[in-house]
Amino acid sequence: MINNKFYPNFKPISFSQIIEIAQISSNDIYEELDPGTVFTGISKIDQAMATDIAVFHNNKYAQEAKVSKAGLTITTEELSKHLPASAPFIAVSNPYRIFAKIIAFMNTENRNDHTSIHPTSIIDPTAKMGNNCIIGPHVVIDAFAEIGDNSKIASGTYIGPSVIVGNNATIHSSVTLSHCEIGDNVIIKPGAKIGQSGFGFNMDDQGPFDVPHVGIVQIGHNVQIGANTCIDRGSIGNTVIQNGVRIDNLVQIAHNVVIGENSIIVAQVGIAGSTHLGKFVVAAGQVGISGHLKIGNFVKIAAQSGIIKDIDDNMTVGGSPAVSVHDWHRQTIALKNLIKKKI
Amino acid sequence: MINNKFYPNFKPISFSQIIEIAQISSNDIYEELDPGTVFTGISKIDQAMATDIAVFHNNKYAQEAKVSKAGLTITTEELSKHLPASAPFIAVSNPYRIFAKIIAFMNTENRNDHTSIHPTSIIDPTAKMGNNCIIGPHVVIDAFAEIGDNSKIASGTYIGPSVIVGNNATIHSSVTLSHCEIGDNVIIKPGAKIGQSGFGFNMDDQGPFDVPHVGIVQIGHNVQIGANTCIDRGSIGNTVIQNGVRIDNLVQIAHNVVIGENSIIVAQVGIAGSTHLGKFVVAAGQVGISGHLKIGNFVKIAAQSGIIKDIDDNMTVGGSPAVSVHDWHRQTIALKNLIKKKI
Amino acid sequence: MINNKFYPNFKPISFSQIIEIAQISSNDIYEELDPGTVFTGISKIDQAMATDIAVFHNNKYAQEAKVSKAGLTITTEELSKHLPASAPFIAVSNPYRIFAKIIAFMNTENRNDHTSIHPTSIIDPTAKMGNNCIIGPHVVIDAFAEIGDNSKIASGTYIGPSVIVGNNATIHSSVTLSHCEIGDNVIIKPGAKIGQSGFGFNMDDQGPFDVPHVGIVQIGHNVQIGANTCIDRGSIGNTVIQNGVRIDNLVQIAHNVVIGENSIIVAQVGIAGSTHLGKFVVAAGQVGISGHLKIGNFVKIAAQSGIIKDIDDNMTVGGSPAVSVHDWHRQTIALKNLIKKKI
Repeated sequence: MINNKFYPNFKPISFSQIIEIAQISSNDIYEELDPGTVFTGISKIDQAMATDIAVFHNNKYAQEAKVSKAGLTITTEELSKHLPASAPFIAVSNPYRIFAKIIAFMNTENRNDHTSIHPTSIIDPTAKMGNNCIIGPHVVIDAFAEIGDNSKIASGTYIGPSVIVGNNATIHSSVTLSHCEIGDNVIIKPGAKIGQSGFGFNMDDQGPFDVPHVGIVQIGHNVQIGANTCIDRGSIGNTVIQNGVRIDNLVQIAHNVVIGENSIIVAQVGIAGSTHLGKFVVAAGQVGISGHLKIGNFVKIAAQSGIIKDIDDNMTVGGSPAVSVHDWHRQTIALKNLIKKKI
Repeated sequence: MINNKFYPNFKPISFSQIIEIAQISSNDIYEELDPGTVFTGISKIDQAMATDIAVFHNNKYAQEAKVSKAGLTITTEELSKHLPASAPFIAVSNPYRIFAKIIAFMNTENRNDHTSIHPTSIIDPTAKMGNNCIIGPHVVIDAFAEIGDNSKIASGTYIGPSVIVGNNATIHSSVTLSHCEIGDNVIIKPGAKIGQSGFGFNMDDQGPFDVPHVGIVQIGHNVQIGANTCIDRGSIGNTVIQNGVRIDNLVQIAHNVVIGENSIIVAQVGIAGSTHLGKFVVAAGQVGISGHLKIGNFVKIAAQSGIIKDIDDNMTVGGSPAVSVHDWHRQTIALKNLIKKKI
Repeated sequence: MINNKFYPNFKPISFSQIIEIAQISSNDIYEELDPGTVFTGISKIDQAMATDIAVFHNNKYAQEAKVSKAGLTITTEELSKHLPASAPFIAVSNPYRIFAKIIAFMNTENRNDHTSIHPTSIIDPTAKMGNNCIIGPHVVIDAFAEIGDNSKIASGTYIGPSVIVGNNATIHSSVTLSHCEIGDNVIIKPGAKIGQSGFGFNMDDQGPFDVPHVGIVQIGHNVQIGANTCIDRGSIGNTVIQNGVRIDNLVQIAHNVVIGENSIIVAQVGIAGSTHLGKFVVAAGQVGISGHLKIGNFVKIAAQSGIIKDIDDNMTVGGSPAVSVHDWHRQTIALKNLIKKKI
């Protein structure tokens, strides 16, 4: 099921290697296969062949699991009963995590073993380049920028003056970085725009009067930023994305927003200026959050919700304007009942 | 009404050519004009001059139609009564389609009659280039990519390793294509990002743990993809866009989504991972669709709706969370009544 | 609080210069400081030091204001009572406007004192270039385009055939402009796509049939357009953005939309085809507006609202579908009461 043309370094894995990677203990349930049994591919549960490893971690796919032909399935004890009687499986508490480790083992990174600075890239003589970088065609790195070791910058990307990019960065094509400092192990997907001035002006009856934005964007370590996502720099002070944050595609982060560690911002979310999110927040797709708010730690926000008030730690909210998820569901049911009565 | 500076090859059309293009039968109503009568422009109904052809297919513009000065109006029999008494018109069942054919005839494609590979483009020696292509400045085509005949790739676009683009493609500026295979007659508008890894990780209290995405994006024939739209590749298996699909600007298509033939995805829609849409689905602007759902054939979804359940074939739904459009309208009315009673 | 690495031309300001810029009259309240007192930075109220000027214009930050250490605070008479007793302040009716003027004075534009056309840019010999322009690396300017005086075009941007850009333009990286005419003093942020064909086709049971788009985009003076925003050209006739309009990031403007003078379009708004907005309209984040509507002057639309009907001048609306903001708030309350009663 792997298209080797796109993944030329995808390699087989043996059952004994899987046991090692999965750190299978005696508490885990699995059928002893010959340690030398080799799997060459991975697959979704419904399309797997005897040479494939599949994951089955979502009850929604129970029907497909019943007729699965996977050579090995990574699942939970609870779900394993849906598999065909003879199907080899490993049952662990977190099958998706184990599966991720297996794929990471099989999908050897397609990194060139030589580094290169493409001759069409333009690197200012004052820029400070790390060791072992790969700089693609037509990349522009401006004055006093600094790029860490082992970083990769793809074609057509622009790195503005004094921007800092840490070690082991992967910056894809057509990205624009300005007025920002970025930590280590960061991935920025194609077309993301980071550090442009925010949407700031003062309005009167003559029209808008611009407020110059003189802050920057600070991005921590292990952050990932999605395709065509926009993060504006601070007006006064900085926009801050803390360590471990994951931001999906087409997200809007306005000036002076702070996003706490390991928070998850799903596609098309918009966060208005100066709002602070705590750590481990999850904002599902298309959520909108007004400006100048404080969203606590571990808050979960349902898709398309509109947030116009501060939210305490650990709350789960939904709706627009958002209420507790419990009340939101009851409002939805109340609306349904309302039109029933009227018939 | 045509700005010839931007459309230098826009050419006149005669009444007899219109009759031929429109395949006017004896059932169609029209005033016989001199077959040699020539029209040089097209226009909206309210701005048309005697040398223009206008379309009038939407009742909203009845006021403007009453005083129209268009030399010829393409309309329906029903709407034609709004036109001035002396106004020449052709009445057909689908005026907009006929109008489209007239414009296509008049607006001769501004294709260079010579092909060219711009000297600043960078094409890997292992890439396979079709005949008669136009490759713009600073385009990068990576190893083992294949580009079909008569395809056009505009400035600054990046085509990743092993990507396949079919015949007669038009790929605009600043596009990034990776991990994808694309059919014939496809148009990709500026800034679209296709094939990047999806938003996939496994979360625990230590933070996110990445799941490598090892699928691709498969795009059929006659597909169009909007400006700055993002389509992530499959995690395991593929993201699939079938023949004839139209995707507008700023749309988010997550990993492993399938969009059936001839479906219409309007601007700023977001579709979460592994959801399958049938054929001829219409998702209006800013709709959000959760992951792992099945949306049937011919389903219509009102703008801004939030879809969190499977939808059967032929349903029309609205609201967030979405219900049948009938119930949605009744909910809206019930809410209005609710606040009336309380006064 | 200013990162001088990113803002190398940020310069100090004296108290007398502030008085002059602020045009302080005898009606304004302020403590007489030594006219030669110099401030070297600006800061948010909670992080200010004695050498900083801060603004305090939002009651939300009253707690922070109480312990502010700012050397000078620009505020209103009403808010000034929250400041520490000894804190120097200037109280004016519009503190944010005065603060903006102070920043603009301090943040001397980092414009190169020499102009330059980068040798890797590609400018068609028929293009007409103004005086004193800065054209970045890998910019492409196509045939018959015209660029005004003192304009700056950043790396990787594409300017299509016959496009006109006025004087004093700032066009950032990875922008695509085609089929458009743009006035003076315009700022276009990275990745914006302007002038591509709109989402236009005629549908039948065979699938979509394309309607060629033969209009352009007309953009007035003093307009700003956000990062990765998309503005489609007119199908017949033009898409029009009038003077003074501010458009934020990731906004979708469809074909033939008209946006009146000084209107404000916040991030992720979508406006469907042929809708006309009046002047001084404010559409807050993630608003969706259907096609073929007329939105009056001075209309305000709450975030995430869905507009499906015309709106009269001066209305403030909210909700989806939108109603008057008064009714919207009452609906929200009614829904809350509805679930209270059921307990």
